[in-house]
Amino acid sequence: MMEIMETKRPGGRRPGTTRTRDAIIDAAVGSFVEKGYTGTTIRGVARTAGVDPALVIHFFGNKDGLFDAFIQEGGLPLRRLKEAIDGDVERLGERLVRTYLSLWEEPESGAKLRAILLTAESSPVAAEMLKAFLTQEILHPLAKRLGADHPEARAILAGSHLIGVALLRYVLRIEAMTALTTDQVIACVAPSLQRYLTGELPLGTG
Amino acid sequence: MMEIMETKRPGGRRPGTTRTRDAIIDAAVGSFVEKGYTGTTIRGVARTAGVDPALVIHFFGNKDGLFDAFIQEGGLPLRRLKEAIDGDVERLGERLVRTYLSLWEEPESGAKLRAILLTAESSPVAAEMLKAFLTQEILHPLAKRLGADHPEARAILAGSHLIGVALLRYVLRIEAMTALTTDQVIACVAPSLQRYLTGELPLGTG
Repeated sequence: MMEIMETKRPGGRRPGTTRTRDAIIDAAVGSFVEKGYTGTTIRGVARTAGVDPALVIHFFGNKDGLFDAFIQEGGLPLRRLKEAIDGDVERLGERLVRTYLSLWEEPESGAKLRAILLTAESSPVAAEMLKAFLTQEILHPLAKRLGADHPEARAILAGSHLIGVALLRYVLRIEAMTALTTDQVIACVAPSLQRYLTGELPLGTG
Repeated sequence: MMEIMETKRPGGRRPGTTRTRDAIIDAAVGSFVEKGYTGTTIRGVARTAGVDPALVIHFFGNKDGLFDAFIQEGGLPLRRLKEAIDGDVERLGERLVRTYLSLWEEPESGAKLRAILLTAESSPVAAEMLKAFLTQEILHPLAKRLGADHPEARAILAGSHLIGVALLRYVLRIEAMTALTTDQVIACVAPSLQRYLTGELPLGTG
């Protein structure tokens, strides 16, 4: 551990260190997706990454640190969600639900999102990390995009609908929800989102 | 155990047996709410109920059986949700969100609902129980109440929004959501629900 700290260059990490760190993140992502939060151990992640457990602790502190790295650096294609947020605000509702569903329906990103949502339920610390992530990476950019009153409230109302759809459709898989096609969900949900994002809402002034 | 089975009367359980069973359910509810699914044990529930662990197994089989009893018989005030479903269908959206939020906001029922939602995330068997419960106790009655096409789809779209609001407001407690008053949430969400329940939806025929 000390050797790595001492040899770190001021301008950034050494390439070998970055590779090791990335290998640990990859192993952690695989473990959270396959075994969940409870089934994930520092030791198991270290074994898969081919490193000493002490090195995992050096980089990430503990399991919650690994989970944070999974959320932040685990390769979620969030760029697409940001692209959906940019662009014509009058069709933002449809773009948002369409992109969001596509992230959940693709096997790799869907498995990651599912693992993140499940983990947040089983660890209070992980829940705080998910909260910070949702707020900084999705709600704030979305609210900032809206040229309307109460942007934060608008963004969270839209977000509440989206996360509920994902919970029933991809996590609990309730039949009435999975029976709908993606296009049906998009067509039904988009107007609700659009109303939250740009419509008249009874929120008062201030 | 055998003694209880042999002395059960054909017409129903003996009063003493019912009292014992109820005491176990009470203990299980308390444990699930306070310690969560992972922290709940047959032994701990038996201790709180003042019975032998074998008796808990006799009545409920295992922890998942206890969880099922918690959902089905744990004293959730679902009667109020059913009353909200009955009555004028043109204001069903508002009644539904108002009643639902009130269940989450009352300390006792709110803690139970939170425990149920969290448990369903940490156990696949518990998730199946929650699915069956939501479908039979809420979605079906709601769908049945709607004199419209695609009643199941309408009910689940409304339900997806409600469960997402609860997740962000009462479980994750994201600030943009908790900053809204209950009346603001009701006023904003009710029209979305009403559109799902009785409005025009782009679901096609059939």
